[in-house]
Amino acid sequence: MSHNLQLNAEGKLKHFLTIDGLDKNLLTEILDTAESFAEMSGHHVKKVPLLRGKTIVNLFFENSTRTRTTFELAAKRLSADVISMNIATSATSKGESLLDTIRNLEAMFVDMFVVRHGTSGAAHFIAEHTAPHISVINAGDGRHSHPTQAMLDVFTIRQFKPNFSTLRVAIIGDILHSRVARSQILALNTLGAAEVRVIAPKTLLPAHVETLGVTVHHNLNEGLKDIDVIIMLRLQKERMTSALLPSESEYFKCFGLTPEKLEIAKPDAIVMHPGPINRGVEIDTRVADGPQSVILQQVSNGIAIRMAVMSMAMQTQGAA
Amino acid sequence: MSHNLQLNAEGKLKHFLTIDGLDKNLLTEILDTAESFAEMSGHHVKKVPLLRGKTIVNLFFENSTRTRTTFELAAKRLSADVISMNIATSATSKGESLLDTIRNLEAMFVDMFVVRHGTSGAAHFIAEHTAPHISVINAGDGRHSHPTQAMLDVFTIRQFKPNFSTLRVAIIGDILHSRVARSQILALNTLGAAEVRVIAPKTLLPAHVETLGVTVHHNLNEGLKDIDVIIMLRLQKERMTSALLPSESEYFKCFGLTPEKLEIAKPDAIVMHPGPINRGVEIDTRVADGPQSVILQQVSNGIAIRMAVMSMAMQTQGAA
Amino acid sequence: MSHNLQLNAEGKLKHFLTIDGLDKNLLTEILDTAESFAEMSGHHVKKVPLLRGKTIVNLFFENSTRTRTTFELAAKRLSADVISMNIATSATSKGESLLDTIRNLEAMFVDMFVVRHGTSGAAHFIAEHTAPHISVINAGDGRHSHPTQAMLDVFTIRQFKPNFSTLRVAIIGDILHSRVARSQILALNTLGAAEVRVIAPKTLLPAHVETLGVTVHHNLNEGLKDIDVIIMLRLQKERMTSALLPSESEYFKCFGLTPEKLEIAKPDAIVMHPGPINRGVEIDTRVADGPQSVILQQVSNGIAIRMAVMSMAMQTQGAA
Repeated sequence: MSHNLQLNAEGKLKHFLTIDGLDKNLLTEILDTAESFAEMSGHHVKKVPLLRGKTIVNLFFENSTRTRTTFELAAKRLSADVISMNIATSATSKGESLLDTIRNLEAMFVDMFVVRHGTSGAAHFIAEHTAPHISVINAGDGRHSHPTQAMLDVFTIRQFKPNFSTLRVAIIGDILHSRVARSQILALNTLGAAEVRVIAPKTLLPAHVETLGVTVHHNLNEGLKDIDVIIMLRLQKERMTSALLPSESEYFKCFGLTPEKLEIAKPDAIVMHPGPINRGVEIDTRVADGPQSVILQQVSNGIAIRMAVMSMAMQTQGAA
Repeated sequence: MSHNLQLNAEGKLKHFLTIDGLDKNLLTEILDTAESFAEMSGHHVKKVPLLRGKTIVNLFFENSTRTRTTFELAAKRLSADVISMNIATSATSKGESLLDTIRNLEAMFVDMFVVRHGTSGAAHFIAEHTAPHISVINAGDGRHSHPTQAMLDVFTIRQFKPNFSTLRVAIIGDILHSRVARSQILALNTLGAAEVRVIAPKTLLPAHVETLGVTVHHNLNEGLKDIDVIIMLRLQKERMTSALLPSESEYFKCFGLTPEKLEIAKPDAIVMHPGPINRGVEIDTRVADGPQSVILQQVSNGIAIRMAVMSMAMQTQGAA
Repeated sequence: MSHNLQLNAEGKLKHFLTIDGLDKNLLTEILDTAESFAEMSGHHVKKVPLLRGKTIVNLFFENSTRTRTTFELAAKRLSADVISMNIATSATSKGESLLDTIRNLEAMFVDMFVVRHGTSGAAHFIAEHTAPHISVINAGDGRHSHPTQAMLDVFTIRQFKPNFSTLRVAIIGDILHSRVARSQILALNTLGAAEVRVIAPKTLLPAHVETLGVTVHHNLNEGLKDIDVIIMLRLQKERMTSALLPSESEYFKCFGLTPEKLEIAKPDAIVMHPGPINRGVEIDTRVADGPQSVILQQVSNGIAIRMAVMSMAMQTQGAA
């Protein structure tokens, strides 16, 4: 998929669909913009009038209360009007095609689609086919991409470890099915991380995973050595019944992050998780709530990152 | 049902329940008001503070994401607060009567009900029984009426064919079950259209349909001659299994609008559809997306029309 | 449960969880604050900018369209941003614990939780564990408490019967399962009502009910003598099948409020009900809609009371 689709003629962010094709400067601009919003969060009035009069439509073809809520909050704090549509249960029930749904919403003069879809490429498809004045933000598409999650993750890392050139990050768990991991790897490599490691059983790694620019470990004890940032992935419990995985307790024994395992990493390593966490499955509750965990900081930063990409994308709309 | 119910003592629009009983001046006032809102849509800030501090309740007893969304957008662009209630699944589950639900919402100082209901006359019933300071907008009741849809249709026609006195309009499809068709026929006749034709198989026409002020055709080729405006109706696929209709492909062959059939009408005829469209059932995809189609223009105009009737109805509330 | 939890160091309302532990001064302050909002309701612009920029999350673990709507309306009239989450069907479906859901929402910089939960003590639990800058309002927890309902009830009583020291109130019906009754009894006694009577069959009264500070009657005719205020409770029809109750008609004969029974009370007695009412079960429709009924007044006052407690609780957040 073309990275040009995401940028306007001046190279500014028009859509935010994937980390792929965005350069270090642009990712840094997103992080810096988010920083200005993050500073605002402690204030009394957190609302800014940047997107007043703009209409943002949350198009959620997959149900995700948490992600929808963060986008809704971010939009409201930018003073936009938000319409949330749970498409899974509504519009297409009358047999309307995705494209017709999009065309109709366009015709209602909306300014932005935030798209969550179970199929890889859905947000790209909408961005390719939507009216020129509309921006599309990918809120997760199939196994492909979840770029705002990756950006909030690198934003959080930068708060604690500002020097990416010496940074060693381990991503642990179900890499195979994770759009989050794909986006994180791209963002970390673009920002010049010294090393991105993936640690997982072979059954949960994509074929030729090294080509993504990662080193690979199948053993947690070995993989955690010299690590600055540990990113745990959520284990989808529904995979547990398949041939991919042994039992839950077996998985926890091998790949669950316990206080003991955490000691293998650098002493000032931070622990991250995109949430929602499965306590006792991929992460020990003492680690999740421990002093090295920055999991809730990630959630906070999610609002700032979403405000940043929404306001940046809307700025490229000019007088359209 | 009395037309007086819709008008206040000065003859101004208080409720908008049906086209029936509204005169040409009033319909024209709605169209002119909508025009001022339609001009605004290209602007950056589409929001006006006309209904600031007002509370509009979307009372949807029938699920309709699209119609609900257009009313919600229209209300937000007028700066009203909107509460959307899907009553089908909520309030009445505790066994509360419609009237008790209305009484309770009234007591919460709401200013307007937008009502969608499967039973003909429901919006009238609510308007008859609600508190004097509250306006009711009919967003579709049973087979009876869908007046905002009819007004956005005549608004769209006026943009392309401003002279109604020479205008010939064909409405094609399931007239029998269509509240949209009933309202369109009334609006077109009130505005002085030269001819309103209905084209449908006999099984999809109401008895004594001519009394509505239409000419009747059962053959598409004959019916399309000299036509300026073609309005296709959505075919409810659920009727397909009944005795009313032959197969889907048979219906399309007889009453589906193809590029070939379209050529029978005047060369500058426009094609309309209330949506959502069934491509290949009542309309060929080349016609739906073709240069004579104004289907998406209708959707855009729907916002302007709804802003117009909402703001007009609210103005009659005076100091109430 | 500690009353201190609800108050900040200066004794101001920080959370609103229960009437228990709040003194007459504080309840009166809530009533007086609500009065200023109630006066506003007749005005054109009912919106005040008191909570502009604040984010209120409706956390409804039990579905209640009506209560959720009143809180949503109250919040919007204070100019707050509102996010409504029906948790029953969403967040916890991914197996997240209540505490993790709360932690995540906190991290998104929300300012207030309005909590409805089927388990007694849920709002307290959240207030005990949430971040210090967040206020919690109990919108009903199990059989325990429904303090905003009780406050709107005493607010309504005060409008008609301002002198509590001579006031005799009868609460009639299913006291056993009613969080509303518990909160009403506490509020009335704190405000110095002369007498609070409960009238119910023995099977619908808690053990040792007298310890709540009420007199007890099992006979409606006797219980209604000298009464100024009659509060009917909603009969949960699902209890009807259990051993607790005879048939619906039997219950109505004994405890239903008819015009004849109403005559036993003082001639200027008012009739109240928290809604939604079961016409013909606990209350005759002639009484519900009769001149002594103030049931819809209660609904109106519910908005003012909720605006009052929301704005008071938010004021204690200071520079937090």
